[in-house]
Amino acid sequence: MSPGEDLPRERRSLGTTRMEAFSDGVFSIAATLLVLDIAIHPPGTALEQVLKAWPFYFAYVVSFLTIGAAWLGHTQLTEGLTRTDPLLLRINLLVLLVVAFLPFPTKLVADALHSNTNERVFVTMYGLTLLAIRVLGFALDAYARRERLSSPPEAGEAQQDEPLELLPVLGGYLVAILIGLVAPRVAVALYFAVAIYMILFEALPRHRSRAHGART
Amino acid sequence: MSPGEDLPRERRSLGTTRMEAFSDGVFSIAATLLVLDIAIHPPGTALEQVLKAWPFYFAYVVSFLTIGAAWLGHTQLTEGLTRTDPLLLRINLLVLLVVAFLPFPTKLVADALHSNTNERVFVTMYGLTLLAIRVLGFALDAYARRERLSSPPEAGEAQQDEPLELLPVLGGYLVAILIGLVAPRVAVALYFAVAIYMILFEALPRHRSRAHGART
Amino acid sequence: MSPGEDLPRERRSLGTTRMEAFSDGVFSIAATLLVLDIAIHPPGTALEQVLKAWPFYFAYVVSFLTIGAAWLGHTQLTEGLTRTDPLLLRINLLVLLVVAFLPFPTKLVADALHSNTNERVFVTMYGLTLLAIRVLGFALDAYARRERLSSPPEAGEAQQDEPLELLPVLGGYLVAILIGLVAPRVAVALYFAVAIYMILFEALPRHRSRAHGART
Amino acid sequence: MSPGEDLPRERRSLGTTRMEAFSDGVFSIAATLLVLDIAIHPPGTALEQVLKAWPFYFAYVVSFLTIGAAWLGHTQLTEGLTRTDPLLLRINLLVLLVVAFLPFPTKLVADALHSNTNERVFVTMYGLTLLAIRVLGFALDAYARRERLSSPPEAGEAQQDEPLELLPVLGGYLVAILIGLVAPRVAVALYFAVAIYMILFEALPRHRSRAHGART
Repeated sequence: MSPGEDLPRERRSLGTTRMEAFSDGVFSIAATLLVLDIAIHPPGTALEQVLKAWPFYFAYVVSFLTIGAAWLGHTQLTEGLTRTDPLLLRINLLVLLVVAFLPFPTKLVADALHSNTNERVFVTMYGLTLLAIRVLGFALDAYARRERLSSPPEAGEAQQDEPLELLPVLGGYLVAILIGLVAPRVAVALYFAVAIYMILFEALPRHRSRAHGART
Repeated sequence: MSPGEDLPRERRSLGTTRMEAFSDGVFSIAATLLVLDIAIHPPGTALEQVLKAWPFYFAYVVSFLTIGAAWLGHTQLTEGLTRTDPLLLRINLLVLLVVAFLPFPTKLVADALHSNTNERVFVTMYGLTLLAIRVLGFALDAYARRERLSSPPEAGEAQQDEPLELLPVLGGYLVAILIGLVAPRVAVALYFAVAIYMILFEALPRHRSRAHGART
Repeated sequence: MSPGEDLPRERRSLGTTRMEAFSDGVFSIAATLLVLDIAIHPPGTALEQVLKAWPFYFAYVVSFLTIGAAWLGHTQLTEGLTRTDPLLLRINLLVLLVVAFLPFPTKLVADALHSNTNERVFVTMYGLTLLAIRVLGFALDAYARRERLSSPPEAGEAQQDEPLELLPVLGGYLVAILIGLVAPRVAVALYFAVAIYMILFEALPRHRSRAHGART
Repeated sequence: MSPGEDLPRERRSLGTTRMEAFSDGVFSIAATLLVLDIAIHPPGTALEQVLKAWPFYFAYVVSFLTIGAAWLGHTQLTEGLTRTDPLLLRINLLVLLVVAFLPFPTKLVADALHSNTNERVFVTMYGLTLLAIRVLGFALDAYARRERLSSPPEAGEAQQDEPLELLPVLGGYLVAILIGLVAPRVAVALYFAVAIYMILFEALPRHRSRAHGART
């Protein structure tokens, strides 16, 4: 029997609904709270202050896109989820705990880049937080797959490739963290590049081929 | 075959549900965070301080209504959406990135109007943010229409007119931004007028004629 | 034909789902942001500071319960809603605009009670905000009823009484606002009493009799 | 007749949907707002400041996990809920009122541990808040069970044990509050231990055995 098949739809979906609602809440709040840390500072004319505040805009964009990418991956995971189990909900809480923490190191990095001080320490802390989001998100995905909480892949879908997705991003983060110890600004640029990479090349839907088929 | 018809309802709606939940989260949080920037300042009696803080209330109303209008448009879009695709979710993230940014220029504009300083720069920045929300929202709508992600229009509905809706608001914003370079307060009044216009005349439901028919 | 009967369930519910999600977002965020304004101040021992901060706790409770009561009324309204229309969504935006504004006068009232200054002005402003939430909430309800957006009342339900509900609370607010001009602290106590009244005696479900019937 | 059986699914679920959405909103916002209180302070090098801020991270984790555990319990409750009633919604509002308050004592505790001052008073206040969340959450659960708002337990499920769950955590909190009067830091460690206990051993699903059955 395929997993979860004998549970009525109504009961099965309840646990996933709450998990999705709580997760969407934390993802969207963490992403939106980032704006509270954007600030401009004297001295200078208004225009100079606005332009010199670029680290705040940049950190905002990097963190927003990273949360967005984590949300896309989370969506892709829960899309196939037919039920939850106790451990899945708890791993999910850990993911959210780190995602909700991200505004703090984001603020530290922006302050550091803006004031040209303490960049090494704060950029490293930022990188470790990004790394934790990634590793925990991967653990969530791997657990759901191992426990067969998701609906089985359909014929023609290359689901086996997905676990490999951890590697490029994890590698990128590790390299960036090491580089950040000597050149913190290069590391921040790499975190931006990884966010763009995740947004562009990851979390593509499992059902893509079928969806395309449906359109033609 | 009409698009998405062969996908089971359950699977089809999952992607749109998460996209709506995350978007509703960001829209409602960005709108509600605006209140954190309202403040009163000495000198003066309590009543004078409250009255002199009008730029904060005004900026709050303009930004809240602009987010409300963007939300109405977003609702109208997703109402007809039968499925999402990877690019749609990513354009949506860009829309939300700019919507979530709005509290920052809102605060700058209120501060500038309150202190009579730096109005030109901050009002221009505010106008550019409003413009970006509009352009990205339009891109989202245009993409969904081009990719036929929405359910097809029904007989008697004038869906072709909708793409034209970009023009009055976009034009209003561009004019206001230019005016703001010499008369920032006039520009802010125009942003208010555009918000009122969007609330009153836009995002009217596609299915209005049918809904009215259902009532009689 | 009864209203909305000929629309497929799926399409009908979409508009109300987004309206509920956005509203739940604003209600819950406004209620939760109230905590950010709670603060303790020197001088005094830690215990004295905590006890002397009672106006902050009190204002928090009054505003939280008022938002809670508004949410209960909103829930009762949307529970019977079979569809939305453009004007309903716009009145709803106005309700939310004022609800999201409440943390600001709440903070002013708490500061005033804590410092024994400016109480009259800030308590009046607070009362006017509570009054606006009530009047707009009533307008939303009245409009939905007039436009028959809700499902028709069932036999044995005394739905006609509900419009009268505006009176006790509206009267309470008006009396409290007038009293607040001479005795602001009495007014704040009255706002608390009105919140308790709304929580206890209002927003009782329309389907109560039937629900009880189902249980016995 | 089993409770709620004669109500159409559609109407029954509406009340619970809004209650879940509002609750998920408050839970997720309260958890995410905790990050706003994390701060680093001079003096010291950047690394020293980051390390010396451990009380902020620790308080963040304890409060986040406590809210997470309360959310897990809430999820477990609403999972079986077939309908709401007026009193349930009001008890739920009280639960949320205290959950939304938690960021304030969390901030006080972190400040106290960081500055080595006022620990006894603030840790006690923190413990009383945690205790209130627990007691109210238990009241919510007990009321729903007494009023048979939940679906009846299925054969083979040991639902009777659940009410006992109050005891270990309640006892833990009471002991910790007393200990906190002489050794506040030990009390905070105990609050962390209770949070871990709740996450690991509580809110396990009622339908676990059946879910396991479905998989084999």
